[in-house]
Amino acid sequence: MLLKKNIPFGYVLGKVKFELLIILVYSATIAVIHQWFLKLPISIPLAVPTILGTVISLLLGFRSNQAYDRWWEARQVWGAIVNDSRTLARQVLAFTESQFEEDEVHQLRQRMVRRQIAWCYALGQSLRRLNPASGLDKYLSRRDLESLSRFNNVPMALLDQQARDLRRGLEEGFINRYQQIEMDRTLTRLCDAMGKCERIKNTVFPSTYSLYIHFSLLLFICMLPFGVIDYFGFLEVPLVVAISACFLLIEKMAIHLQDPFENKPTDTPMTAIAGTIERDLRQMLHDQDMVEEKRPESFYYIL
Amino acid sequence: MLLKKNIPFGYVLGKVKFELLIILVYSATIAVIHQWFLKLPISIPLAVPTILGTVISLLLGFRSNQAYDRWWEARQVWGAIVNDSRTLARQVLAFTESQFEEDEVHQLRQRMVRRQIAWCYALGQSLRRLNPASGLDKYLSRRDLESLSRFNNVPMALLDQQARDLRRGLEEGFINRYQQIEMDRTLTRLCDAMGKCERIKNTVFPSTYSLYIHFSLLLFICMLPFGVIDYFGFLEVPLVVAISACFLLIEKMAIHLQDPFENKPTDTPMTAIAGTIERDLRQMLHDQDMVEEKRPESFYYIL
Amino acid sequence: MLLKKNIPFGYVLGKVKFELLIILVYSATIAVIHQWFLKLPISIPLAVPTILGTVISLLLGFRSNQAYDRWWEARQVWGAIVNDSRTLARQVLAFTESQFEEDEVHQLRQRMVRRQIAWCYALGQSLRRLNPASGLDKYLSRRDLESLSRFNNVPMALLDQQARDLRRGLEEGFINRYQQIEMDRTLTRLCDAMGKCERIKNTVFPSTYSLYIHFSLLLFICMLPFGVIDYFGFLEVPLVVAISACFLLIEKMAIHLQDPFENKPTDTPMTAIAGTIERDLRQMLHDQDMVEEKRPESFYYIL
Amino acid sequence: MLLKKNIPFGYVLGKVKFELLIILVYSATIAVIHQWFLKLPISIPLAVPTILGTVISLLLGFRSNQAYDRWWEARQVWGAIVNDSRTLARQVLAFTESQFEEDEVHQLRQRMVRRQIAWCYALGQSLRRLNPASGLDKYLSRRDLESLSRFNNVPMALLDQQARDLRRGLEEGFINRYQQIEMDRTLTRLCDAMGKCERIKNTVFPSTYSLYIHFSLLLFICMLPFGVIDYFGFLEVPLVVAISACFLLIEKMAIHLQDPFENKPTDTPMTAIAGTIERDLRQMLHDQDMVEEKRPESFYYIL
Amino acid sequence: MLLKKNIPFGYVLGKVKFELLIILVYSATIAVIHQWFLKLPISIPLAVPTILGTVISLLLGFRSNQAYDRWWEARQVWGAIVNDSRTLARQVLAFTESQFEEDEVHQLRQRMVRRQIAWCYALGQSLRRLNPASGLDKYLSRRDLESLSRFNNVPMALLDQQARDLRRGLEEGFINRYQQIEMDRTLTRLCDAMGKCERIKNTVFPSTYSLYIHFSLLLFICMLPFGVIDYFGFLEVPLVVAISACFLLIEKMAIHLQDPFENKPTDTPMTAIAGTIERDLRQMLHDQDMVEEKRPESFYYIL
Repeated sequence: MLLKKNIPFGYVLGKVKFELLIILVYSATIAVIHQWFLKLPISIPLAVPTILGTVISLLLGFRSNQAYDRWWEARQVWGAIVNDSRTLARQVLAFTESQFEEDEVHQLRQRMVRRQIAWCYALGQSLRRLNPASGLDKYLSRRDLESLSRFNNVPMALLDQQARDLRRGLEEGFINRYQQIEMDRTLTRLCDAMGKCERIKNTVFPSTYSLYIHFSLLLFICMLPFGVIDYFGFLEVPLVVAISACFLLIEKMAIHLQDPFENKPTDTPMTAIAGTIERDLRQMLHDQDMVEEKRPESFYYIL
Repeated sequence: MLLKKNIPFGYVLGKVKFELLIILVYSATIAVIHQWFLKLPISIPLAVPTILGTVISLLLGFRSNQAYDRWWEARQVWGAIVNDSRTLARQVLAFTESQFEEDEVHQLRQRMVRRQIAWCYALGQSLRRLNPASGLDKYLSRRDLESLSRFNNVPMALLDQQARDLRRGLEEGFINRYQQIEMDRTLTRLCDAMGKCERIKNTVFPSTYSLYIHFSLLLFICMLPFGVIDYFGFLEVPLVVAISACFLLIEKMAIHLQDPFENKPTDTPMTAIAGTIERDLRQMLHDQDMVEEKRPESFYYIL
Repeated sequence: MLLKKNIPFGYVLGKVKFELLIILVYSATIAVIHQWFLKLPISIPLAVPTILGTVISLLLGFRSNQAYDRWWEARQVWGAIVNDSRTLARQVLAFTESQFEEDEVHQLRQRMVRRQIAWCYALGQSLRRLNPASGLDKYLSRRDLESLSRFNNVPMALLDQQARDLRRGLEEGFINRYQQIEMDRTLTRLCDAMGKCERIKNTVFPSTYSLYIHFSLLLFICMLPFGVIDYFGFLEVPLVVAISACFLLIEKMAIHLQDPFENKPTDTPMTAIAGTIERDLRQMLHDQDMVEEKRPESFYYIL
Repeated sequence: MLLKKNIPFGYVLGKVKFELLIILVYSATIAVIHQWFLKLPISIPLAVPTILGTVISLLLGFRSNQAYDRWWEARQVWGAIVNDSRTLARQVLAFTESQFEEDEVHQLRQRMVRRQIAWCYALGQSLRRLNPASGLDKYLSRRDLESLSRFNNVPMALLDQQARDLRRGLEEGFINRYQQIEMDRTLTRLCDAMGKCERIKNTVFPSTYSLYIHFSLLLFICMLPFGVIDYFGFLEVPLVVAISACFLLIEKMAIHLQDPFENKPTDTPMTAIAGTIERDLRQMLHDQDMVEEKRPESFYYIL
Repeated sequence: MLLKKNIPFGYVLGKVKFELLIILVYSATIAVIHQWFLKLPISIPLAVPTILGTVISLLLGFRSNQAYDRWWEARQVWGAIVNDSRTLARQVLAFTESQFEEDEVHQLRQRMVRRQIAWCYALGQSLRRLNPASGLDKYLSRRDLESLSRFNNVPMALLDQQARDLRRGLEEGFINRYQQIEMDRTLTRLCDAMGKCERIKNTVFPSTYSLYIHFSLLLFICMLPFGVIDYFGFLEVPLVVAISACFLLIEKMAIHLQDPFENKPTDTPMTAIAGTIERDLRQMLHDQDMVEEKRPESFYYIL
């Protein structure tokens, strides 16, 4: 989302180099047998791979669309997290009555805004199946941090703490009843965003579709040399490899896009987004110990 | 949604093995007649099955899209159920005034959160046309359970009970008027989710479309041997079977995806999702008799 | 939505039997002339109908998508009506203060819930261009029923009566000001659902598109015999009829789907849905004179 | 939206008759030269126009989809305007306290409902680039009408007047604070609908896409005669004209659909919709001087 | 969005002239070698580029769709900004109690409306990576302007200032508690719109997809001459160039559409939209020093 560095071409090609090697050997073998040993009567009309090619194009198009939609939805959800984090911070700062501009209100503000930052990091880490609570001690009080250990779902527990602080704010009179409801709604939207991320993470693309597409693709590639051997001779080998690479890369691409939270170099740059949120929220809070801006993680490429 | 185990390939192939057997016999018969008995002048130009192949590809693409959309909507709805269950629990816990941290409030909280868990199980079971009230005695009071028997639609009755408890909470002064409205909205969203599941369950995919697609597919498969017999001879048999399998599997796949609540091994893992909701809500509630985590049902595959 | 009975195949085929008869005669005439009288030099390269076939496939795909979207939106709207009817009933029952559990409140509840049932039937009938007020006397008071006669749009008038009852409830103190607003929002959503149904009903699919698709289809069917006559001889006749049937049925199917409120056997089963709503709402209301469950209308097929 | 009369076929064909004439002359010239003067060696393999035909089909499909989406969104927005107009009227009538059923409240109600009718007409006229204020004197007071002259955007000014009347209603005690907010939300939705219409009106479809599609189409049509001249001779002329008409009509159709507010016979029937809104709102208001129902404008066809 | 002037054709063609030159030389070389020096046995069956052509069409269609969606979403977001700016101004003017029609309220109104204008300009400039604060001194007080310098994200800081003014208004009694919440919601929507723009700006289209499409396109163009050289001879050169131009322009078009905030002549006309907002809001405010209407920037074309 924030990283414009391209993926080196080698990285991409590396993903299919094993398959391409096998295809190279396979098509070369056919060419050698056909040219040197015996003119096999094996050439088939090009129309047969053409039918298969059309079907596969449609299937790959269908799959690319679904994979892109998952990837784009993941970005949208994290975009919504950015928005709602800012909204929550704005509400925390602007709703709490200014006549109470004393220590207790100040602490409530700071606690809630920092907890929101912590929530963003915790969500990113838990989606990548890392320890969600690691590194949160900078943002949370010791007591909050300890109570997290009881929960499997750390971000949910943080939202729960936010809601408890809201009740405390209402009871102390820092916010009024309408403001509590309105900020609870912001928490509800954050809860929805969290649930959407989990849904995308936990719902696998129907694996049988993947299987069929892969199976059809193999059938197509196996037939291709027989369809063009009569016209090209040895030139058939690079042609088959190039066309296969073209299809395989699209398939591989879709596989990458469809799982946007897999802790791979190509997933959603959640740490970088959380860093931006931290910067913005700290500036809103006039936070003294302003951290130096986080470098976006260099390990992750942007897809 | 939570189950990553693949469907064994055999299970998938099993779905079309009967059709494939017939096609095997059919195409073998044609090959035998053509090769051994008489060179029939029956070969037809490949362009004819090609036209049909294009049409069928488009139709299957259309159908796959609609089926995937239904399946994905089902997942989205259950994702929303997870979110709103958590939101309801958070609101129940954080809205009820803490100065009333006495027994009566505690009971209200426990009753409402447990009823929400019951609602999730009841919805899953009623969508699978099982007895919706079975197993709910762990979560509901005897009185609530009895009053359910009067209703055809059990989850709706549970929402109704939640709303009555909210009114009781307002009358007792545990929650204020804004909080009642806000929690009623969460109930409204749960009611919407329930209605969406019922809509997907009860709306069949236009059966005439299915019929046309199947009919066109049969026409295409019947023609295919005549289009390739001249080029392949006996090799025609595996080719026709492979291409037919390719199309038939896609059709079968769409049929599976389009009915995501049918109590088949491949449907939405509603029991597992409800189990996750139960775990999260119980942790929020500090529930002592924390159940051991439910094993996700082993009978269901994830699609 | 609730009716799983398939449309008999004959009903479907009946829709295109006239067209197919003409095509049969047309293609048979060509075959007869070509085979018996003179070998006409009229055969054309198959590529020409192939180009047309691709175009038509895309157009039919476009049209099927739009028609399906209309049909699916109609179902979604009626699904939303189910949800909002239940929500309104839940709110009517749970918002009215229980200390007023006396006769007047009871009457208000009963009046509003029954009027909601009446609204569902009235909307269904007015979308089918039947008399919207017929059969509503079971649900409405005589006074309400009379005041409807002044309105062209009966369902809108019913919503208006609901809103007036809400004001009365507020003035009598049965509900508070927040509850009035919240229930008015439910009315707003019902008003939106009604407007969406009217939009789908009143917006015709661009008729020029239909015309072009039909025109291209005719061109394609007229050319088809000339493209295959050389290869098939008399076998051309069943082939042309089969392929034409395939295309014509898809076109006819789209025409049916795109108008989901036309009082045809294949439209949205609104009466059955309203019957389900009636059952659920009456059970919530503990309605003594519980009607026997309405049989879904046998005249309508489910598409 | 409300007009079912079809566009006469001549009107449609008239849109492309100039292009078709040129194509007729062009293809006839080629046929004449080829047949009478010299057998040109200019015939090209049909595969070349086939490739182009596929590309153009996809581009036209893309364009048709986008154009249809714009057209359908325009209808949806006007559907939402119908809904929100009814909602506003319902709220105006049901929120104002009935104990104030005196003259002042009555005037407020009448003023606001009539202004809403005026707003619908004004929006339709301003989208068609007509004078938005013409004909509004029937619905607005002289003072309101005069204050409009200061604004470029008349519908926005009317919404502003509605909001001012709401404040007046609050200050006079006719409505309470929650009702003011709720009705302001209805105004916000009307403001959104207005902005969406302006967006569709002011955002042109990317003109370079249109250019490319037109350019590819010309290339395709220019090649077509050379691809089929060998097979058809003089029959090539009607064939090329028919296929060209088929493509050109689709392009023309998309051009019409994509601009739904252009004061052409085929645009959104905004005046008719506003007429329906007027009828419904006047009936809700018990308006004595009920106007005879407006005839839908006969100048506009429904697309 | 507001600029209807077409992009000159030369500008468009200029984008691909370099590529077309190379293709011209390449195809001419092949033609020369083939015709004059030696009849190379290099012609390949047209079916091979046809398969590739189909794949590329689908990929370009996929890409065009995604690019168009990004472009259209950008327009929608700016449309929403127009709506919410008007809504905010309407609320500022209509919510503040008229009995306070004194200087202080007047100043609050003016400050908030002008700050909203400033926000629109600042967002546009920050999306184009220009100095977001330049030119805002016309709309903001000196103190507001200074406090912006502390923030990286200027529009976010402006929203923060709006929220603080709302609190001040509540504390002074100019607005009530419900109105504060309602106007805060408008700020939340503006915050969402801002976040959506940033998401579109910062999320690059998956670069590997672009790479594959470009790679497949090159393969296709390289093969094309060999597929048609036998039929066309020297006429092959213009044909290859024309078909290549057709594909390349579509690819280029998609690249332009997919980045709608890049300060190129073809991006979203944000300054013009902000100018319209300024005009409307100033008219609502009865702003004396009404600026002459901003000329839309002549540098930007509308796409």
